Amino acid sequence: MATVSLTLDEIFDLAKNTLLANGCDDETASILSDLIMKAERDGSLSHGLFRLPAYVTGLKGGKINGKGRPEISKLTPSVIKADGKNCLAPMVLNKAIPELVKAAKDNGVAVLAITNSHHMAAMWPETEAIAEQGLVAFACTSYKPAVAPAGAIKPLFGTNPISFAWPRKNNTPVVYDMATASMAMGEVQVAKREGHKVPLGTGLNKDGKETTEPGEIADGGVLLPFGGYKGSGIAMMVELLAGALVGDNFSFETAQKDNNDGGPPSGGEFILAISPDKLSNTDWDKHSSVFFEKMKSMGDVRLPGERRHKNRLDTGPRNINEELVNKIKSLS
Amino acid sequence: MATVSLTLDEIFDLAKNTLLANGCDDETASILSDLIMKAERDGSLSHGLFRLPAYVTGLKGGKINGKGRPEISKLTPSVIKADGKNCLAPMVLNKAIPELVKAAKDNGVAVLAITNSHHMAAMWPETEAIAEQGLVAFACTSYKPAVAPAGAIKPLFGTNPISFAWPRKNNTPVVYDMATASMAMGEVQVAKREGHKVPLGTGLNKDGKETTEPGEIADGGVLLPFGGYKGSGIAMMVELLAGALVGDNFSFETAQKDNNDGGPPSGGEFILAISPDKLSNTDWDKHSSVFFEKMKSMGDVRLPGERRHKNRLDTGPRNINEELVNKIKSLS
Repeated sequence: MATVSLTLDEIFDLAKNTLLANGCDDETASILSDLIMKAERDGSLSHGLFRLPAYVTGLKGGKINGKGRPEISKLTPSVIKADGKNCLAPMVLNKAIPELVKAAKDNGVAVLAITNSHHMAAMWPETEAIAEQGLVAFACTSYKPAVAPAGAIKPLFGTNPISFAWPRKNNTPVVYDMATASMAMGEVQVAKREGHKVPLGTGLNKDGKETTEPGEIADGGVLLPFGGYKGSGIAMMVELLAGALVGDNFSFETAQKDNNDGGPPSGGEFILAISPDKLSNTDWDKHSSVFFEKMKSMGDVRLPGERRHKNRLDTGPRNINEELVNKIKSLS
Repeated sequence: MATVSLTLDEIFDLAKNTLLANGCDDETASILSDLIMKAERDGSLSHGLFRLPAYVTGLKGGKINGKGRPEISKLTPSVIKADGKNCLAPMVLNKAIPELVKAAKDNGVAVLAITNSHHMAAMWPETEAIAEQGLVAFACTSYKPAVAPAGAIKPLFGTNPISFAWPRKNNTPVVYDMATASMAMGEVQVAKREGHKVPLGTGLNKDGKETTEPGEIADGGVLLPFGGYKGSGIAMMVELLAGALVGDNFSFETAQKDNNDGGPPSGGEFILAISPDKLSNTDWDKHSSVFFEKMKSMGDVRLPGERRHKNRLDTGPRNINEELVNKIKSLS
């Protein structure tokens, strides 16, 4: 694969200029470009520049408002509601997370209910930002149907990612961000191309039968939740929290309402923040450090987020897919 | 298996008399017996009379206080802390859940942090009780190490159950309660006895290798989390929420501190309650009903909790293992 070497500043500028040329105002373009740059910096490539063409599609088609601002209201001292007004999720999060953090610090626990926002980024940026303020964070969002509930053979759930972050006082948070699908369909397609089998439980073929052949899943089949009926329960919880609870779409409604231009559809997100300072009455940071040390001493165990945080230490240029860079340049 | 037919009242009385004869006061005995009767009623047999001998062991040995009361305090309008004072968890929950429900209704979200309590029951009783008040509920607790983190070959996590309940206005809540272990060790032992294989990912043998032979897992091997590294992340979250966050033990600390008499050890529990009335600004009940109907229409899909709620409709006697009944009778 031919690559181009770009500094982190150049990645930011490439994203920002592209967004400015496609209907974003300066603040929206800056917030999203910062997120894209940080994804590339952390090695989270599927959420970096790779997503930019889809954002542009959604902006150009008019379903995303690149110049809007969310409407944020405090429904109770512990409940923040953010009507995204069809902004990109990073803009909504940029305005709403500080309110959530303040409410959680004051009250010990707070919820942020986001509606009408376009989310296509990773979720660790929001949970990590909350954890960096000394709070425990949990976030989830749904999308469009791609995953069959346990017992079904057609999709109903989105890939429905969940993210959890635990704060550490003199260290980066322990944070994960994972789809509740067994695997991304992109990974299934890679396995097909490379001639590998996939584990049983990854998905079903077009007749609803379990298969280890990625081609049978990719061509008319369906993904399954991770971990069978237990993962299915968690994917269902995500539909409910990011859907009916916050007052936005279930995945199947998102698909019905979206214009299917390839850009991120409008939907909801649920975010919870909890203050261990308020709850624990103990030295929770020292206590959890002992646990993490124990966990890491047990063999080939990595704390979630470690690899990203290690990548982050390298502030040098990144090698970016040249074809992708050229495609992005053609959008301005 | 020889069985004895007992009415629900007789099940309650058998449990209550046994507990009264072993150091419980009337209120503690009534609360726990009600829970045991309801587990038998709902077909949740592994959490019914089957647990009674272990409770008695813990009461007799003195680590459980059968006459105590929890100390409940409101740390903020949204944070309830319950020091269990070495009571059984059902006694603690009986006193603390009403406070949690009130706080969640008033503030939209609230957390109950339980410490120093002995939990060996199912968790659906608490999440279902919260959902019956029109609130979304999530609960989790850890135990003693039985499950290896992804990448490790020795146990660190407990079976670490999580429970989630979604309220329905004119219907029973949708509720699940599941271990984050791939399978209970008891089920692995059953598979061994019956000569079945278990799915890959259930556990490791004594050398830390994956195996489908239940005997290799049961004899010196270790269970794995459900769903590989993703389930491992959720099991880790449970350790943190029910441990350092509420200010109580991690599973490995519980094992170090327990007297290992077989009775339930002392530990923490984390419970979250959220009010959809406060968050959604929509008819969340109607909205989620549409989702559940859609889900049930997709084939062999069961809503979590349905089977228990169906069993509940039968108010007749239950057939109880005679050997178990005799064992319990010998405890008075």
